[in-house]
Amino acid sequence: MAWKAKTIPDNVPRHLRKSAQSVASLDRLTMRSSFYTIKWVGDVQGHLRLLDQTRLPGETVYFECRTVEDVWQAIRRLSVRGAPAIGIAAAYGVCIGVQKGRNVSDVCDYLATSRPTAVNLFWALDRMRRVGRVSRDPPILQNDDGSRGARPTLQELPTLLLAEAQAIDAEDRQMCAEIARQGADMLADLPAGAGILTHCNTGALVSGSGEGTALAIIFELARRGKRPHLWADETRPLLQGARLTMWELQQRGIDATLICDSAAGQVMREGRVQAIITGADRIAANGDTANKIGTYSVATLARVHGIPFYVAAPTTTFDLAIATGRDIPIEQRAAEEVTHAFGRQTAPTGVSVYNPAFDVTPAELITAIITERGVVQPVNSESIRWVARP
Amino acid sequence: MAWKAKTIPDNVPRHLRKSAQSVASLDRLTMRSSFYTIKWVGDVQGHLRLLDQTRLPGETVYFECRTVEDVWQAIRRLSVRGAPAIGIAAAYGVCIGVQKGRNVSDVCDYLATSRPTAVNLFWALDRMRRVGRVSRDPPILQNDDGSRGARPTLQELPTLLLAEAQAIDAEDRQMCAEIARQGADMLADLPAGAGILTHCNTGALVSGSGEGTALAIIFELARRGKRPHLWADETRPLLQGARLTMWELQQRGIDATLICDSAAGQVMREGRVQAIITGADRIAANGDTANKIGTYSVATLARVHGIPFYVAAPTTTFDLAIATGRDIPIEQRAAEEVTHAFGRQTAPTGVSVYNPAFDVTPAELITAIITERGVVQPVNSESIRWVARP
Repeated sequence: MAWKAKTIPDNVPRHLRKSAQSVASLDRLTMRSSFYTIKWVGDVQGHLRLLDQTRLPGETVYFECRTVEDVWQAIRRLSVRGAPAIGIAAAYGVCIGVQKGRNVSDVCDYLATSRPTAVNLFWALDRMRRVGRVSRDPPILQNDDGSRGARPTLQELPTLLLAEAQAIDAEDRQMCAEIARQGADMLADLPAGAGILTHCNTGALVSGSGEGTALAIIFELARRGKRPHLWADETRPLLQGARLTMWELQQRGIDATLICDSAAGQVMREGRVQAIITGADRIAANGDTANKIGTYSVATLARVHGIPFYVAAPTTTFDLAIATGRDIPIEQRAAEEVTHAFGRQTAPTGVSVYNPAFDVTPAELITAIITERGVVQPVNSESIRWVARP
Repeated sequence: MAWKAKTIPDNVPRHLRKSAQSVASLDRLTMRSSFYTIKWVGDVQGHLRLLDQTRLPGETVYFECRTVEDVWQAIRRLSVRGAPAIGIAAAYGVCIGVQKGRNVSDVCDYLATSRPTAVNLFWALDRMRRVGRVSRDPPILQNDDGSRGARPTLQELPTLLLAEAQAIDAEDRQMCAEIARQGADMLADLPAGAGILTHCNTGALVSGSGEGTALAIIFELARRGKRPHLWADETRPLLQGARLTMWELQQRGIDATLICDSAAGQVMREGRVQAIITGADRIAANGDTANKIGTYSVATLARVHGIPFYVAAPTTTFDLAIATGRDIPIEQRAAEEVTHAFGRQTAPTGVSVYNPAFDVTPAELITAIITERGVVQPVNSESIRWVARP
């Protein structure tokens, strides 16, 4: 089922209409296949439908979120995951929250507790908070032509919030397309059939309606006839590489080989990998990058083998308030993710487990960061300040 | 159930009796717990009982091998695994083969096809072949006191073979104890409570009746009051770290934390690891070491973090006929080990998988190799020629 642009309600102020409208024109840029990741169903009284990614690749099942608690749970248990996607899902979650008359700020505070590391979550919720404040104590709005706009009323709040969530969704779709273009341009010199290794999942499943980040670049390279060969780390403990990346690549007909995480070093040593691209969950002001556990090992091995290591992320992933990776909060997840692997207990009862969901790759191991605004290279505070400017 | 020394049949020639006898005196050196890995049940017409390691840690179930095909299957499907243990199991497998009148050499050829990488398998089968040749065309045997021994007859062959298999088993037990002592002596300066990381399983489960190799050193350190804290890589795809190492450590009451393979780099970066010890499946003449897939990545990360990386292995693991790791045959295993993780399909049907069971760690990344004859350090052709002398 192809993605369809939402109908923009008539009472959305002009300054909020623009981004929502741009969605429609983006359809031709993408090759969405038989699924959608995040979908708002209905009008302001509607609900959120999420592809339940915990059930992939076995089942393509959608999870209907009708309460804020549903959305919190969906993010927490990774039914929806990937930095951009959890921001979008949370934004729609705020729309559900206000249907029952709850305060925007309270709903945002609650949703912000779902996961700690990906900064896009907090960024999206901050945008929703701003809309909440506008309607509570509205300033004089300015239309694009300089004329005065109407003050939105409290009654219009649900409409405004939905429009904002849809704008975040649409902008993300556009950012994905730009990252794909920037990355494919940068990798134009890669020989056809080159090996590219990736870790975790960064495709359409991490975006509301776009193509993702690192994998979006692969899709674009494929469209340009580069025939990339993907090496996908399975990405324990939750196997996003095996379950999700391999599924997306199979749907697109892109050549790919699945490996255990521990085989990545060997594959590099065998000369099969010409470039490595991963996503990011939060990037500090100096370029240190939090991403799925194992990324740091992959980046270190890339350096030892002389392979360029790229990060692909929208500028919403930068957190300039954090100086270095040392200060990025790292989510610790349940021991059961490691001890009970997919239907069977695989470690003795009661053992200790260390299960950080992310690690931090220091800036010096990152060849470049590919954003929708351009490629950050070399990766340092100065270049990041420029690309992540407001 | 404690390990019991086998009764040595009266008609075993004196030159073969010695090693079998030494087993009994070794009991006090070890702390065997509630299981045994490999056990010969009965007399020369007996059979082989193996702990089915594919069912651990959930079930402690023994697999009874009454045909050579049973033994081949048990090795192939990793019911018994670990370089020393598959050598011992194969040696007992030869004893089963000759019960039905099969030719020793044919049985050895067949069992040698069960797995290609661990050289101990071929080493043990070569010993059995030699016994087969002795009985076919017996030389004059020399007793220890210089007197002439009796020529064994073809009728005595099963007895001789069983004695040889029991000798291999007993010698392995003694080698484990010596490796433990050598390793613990070498690591005497490690502070109490030091973090030690290991990959795969190298404990009592890789030995017939001994304590193993790398883990045997940990057990010895624990006995010496060093309170080591183990970091165990889960070791995908077959999770020998999660299922077997954590089980052995739990039974011994040794402090341990289970991690995903991809978290090893992060754990090193956090300063939690003071030493790394793994086993080996085959060591080339120059010290390049084949071991469980992922070992090369661990060794590389160790070097980057300045952590010593040790290999523990009996001298039977050296293959001086192979100059460098490049020539070590690496077993490729089934895609299903990666795509069907423990009871559930975790990758789309039909995807390509690269599943090498081993990788090769170059000698220059290995701080030292701990053998029963001493510690090889630095690791180079000269020191290896000395320690692996016949």
